[in-house]
Amino acid sequence: MNTKKRGRQTVRFATPPSIAGFGSTVGRMERAGPLGPCFDLAGEDDTFGQPSWEKAETAMQKQALTFALDRAGIQGEQLDYVFAGDLLNQCIATAYSLRDWSIPFFGLYGACSTMAEGLSLAAMVIDGGFAAYAAAMTSSHFCSAERQYRSPLEYGGQKPPTAQWTATGAGAVILAQGGPGPYITHATTGKVVDKGITDASNMGAAMAPAAYATLRAHFEETGRGPEFYDAIVTGDLGSLGKEIVLDFFRQDGVALPHYDDCGVLLFDPARQDVHAGGSGCGCSAVVLTGYLLGKMRRGECRHLLFCGTGALHSPTATMQGESIPGICHAVAIAAEKGDTP
Amino acid sequence: MNTKKRGRQTVRFATPPSIAGFGSTVGRMERAGPLGPCFDLAGEDDTFGQPSWEKAETAMQKQALTFALDRAGIQGEQLDYVFAGDLLNQCIATAYSLRDWSIPFFGLYGACSTMAEGLSLAAMVIDGGFAAYAAAMTSSHFCSAERQYRSPLEYGGQKPPTAQWTATGAGAVILAQGGPGPYITHATTGKVVDKGITDASNMGAAMAPAAYATLRAHFEETGRGPEFYDAIVTGDLGSLGKEIVLDFFRQDGVALPHYDDCGVLLFDPARQDVHAGGSGCGCSAVVLTGYLLGKMRRGECRHLLFCGTGALHSPTATMQGESIPGICHAVAIAAEKGDTP
Repeated sequence: MNTKKRGRQTVRFATPPSIAGFGSTVGRMERAGPLGPCFDLAGEDDTFGQPSWEKAETAMQKQALTFALDRAGIQGEQLDYVFAGDLLNQCIATAYSLRDWSIPFFGLYGACSTMAEGLSLAAMVIDGGFAAYAAAMTSSHFCSAERQYRSPLEYGGQKPPTAQWTATGAGAVILAQGGPGPYITHATTGKVVDKGITDASNMGAAMAPAAYATLRAHFEETGRGPEFYDAIVTGDLGSLGKEIVLDFFRQDGVALPHYDDCGVLLFDPARQDVHAGGSGCGCSAVVLTGYLLGKMRRGECRHLLFCGTGALHSPTATMQGESIPGICHAVAIAAEKGDTP
Repeated sequence: MNTKKRGRQTVRFATPPSIAGFGSTVGRMERAGPLGPCFDLAGEDDTFGQPSWEKAETAMQKQALTFALDRAGIQGEQLDYVFAGDLLNQCIATAYSLRDWSIPFFGLYGACSTMAEGLSLAAMVIDGGFAAYAAAMTSSHFCSAERQYRSPLEYGGQKPPTAQWTATGAGAVILAQGGPGPYITHATTGKVVDKGITDASNMGAAMAPAAYATLRAHFEETGRGPEFYDAIVTGDLGSLGKEIVLDFFRQDGVALPHYDDCGVLLFDPARQDVHAGGSGCGCSAVVLTGYLLGKMRRGECRHLLFCGTGALHSPTATMQGESIPGICHAVAIAAEKGDTP
């Protein structure tokens, strides 16, 4: 038993699930960024025709899932499970987006790691023989996050340079038992890591130790080195957190030649005032579904390690003086099936 | 493939995971209720030695998991995965309780359905060959829920008779590949069901249609009738939601002879002023871990259908005039392994 286990945190899928479809929906800022042309849909004014930012987030999720279903060539009713969540209190963007579909639903809360968490679980239920199709979905919205976590938009609060910019976007991925790939080959599940950072405007620093811990576990447990991957992408540490991860590995004498972060990739700091870069569940979700999976399908990337990072705190915890626990879930994605030692 | 699937929502486990351990921690009101003597630990003053209600909830979770590990005879480090979540914004009770353990962690948000959701997923990762041990854990606290969802305790807000009382309690269950049982044999995963109830003080009515839908799906897809079970227990619809479920089945001409609700079981309405009964993630979790699983171990219940029900709204959604989406996940638990058609 447990022949799929590779050490403490990693599993290797016996029959790697295939990515059958993916979809992305973003806001105005994301469209204006360097990846702008990649996304399936970009809104004109970030409302997506809805009367509130929260409802706009729900509308984005529905769009992203619709694109993913279209690409997979299936109906929502064919999905055995959807794993989804978001940043809003009680994950309402997700609950309301799934109200109009008839799909068995497992609700997740993994903060910005939600897409990687959902992909891990969707791959497990397929490889475990419980599902033919399973989806992972998440979203975030700059405006709904600002007013929930910080202050009303109208207040015009200033942020320190270490702060990140919550992406407006939703991404959905559909996995299938068989298909032309790319394939999810491994999942390395994170533990809660808290190194004592208490500054909620510096979440890159709070999450970087979790990213480092999961990457180290992945390399050790799979026997792969960083050079195995054409791309190792965390999401979303921003420019500061990215440097911290590189620093940690430098101290180990390990180079990460093909490493980047979704929060760095999504915006152009020279043209866009996003401080330390993008964040939010939607950030890594749309970089994966709008940019990275397209590269894999076009043969421009054979091995991707997608590492979702989440800060598991809340405004209440911060007000009580608590430090910020982080988590990172990694998913290895291969263009070809035979490619997985 | 998918030989484990039984219809749209139900899976049957090929090798039913065994419940290796379980633990429960409750507050003062729960100790004073009819199930008071069943729980592993009851706090003196609901603070559990902590300076805030949120931290008290974290402390309860740690206690419940410790009891479950002790009963299972394993260390935390032997758990391959923990599936956990709670009601607090960003599920902080859970993130902070797992900070001191070194366990791969999947965060869930299922509102009061969290224990059933966690059990479903824990059973899937074990039966799927990904884990030897996996845990499901959740909690709620009357005081942290009151101030987050309604008003500060000091305000002394009045509630209508349809409102429920958030239970103070945490429960944890550990599943293992093998063992003496009881065994998780089936999981029926819920879809989002919203029949338009907008009254956040009547969540029993909002969730009852989801409970009815999942129960119907379970009976149809397993071929079992209600009489197959010694106990069918929803959690937590309260007295009003329970009557609505009975009504729905009565309209179908189906009797539910052994049906009850965790929110009804936890408190004594004649002695305790809890309006329509208990609620909160902790309610069904402690009724399962403190009362029902003990009955199964003592041979007083052979077949249990445990149905977690969650209301997937938030104060923000309610303020925006939204109705309350509900969900219900059902888990079939059998005292003996051979017992599962």
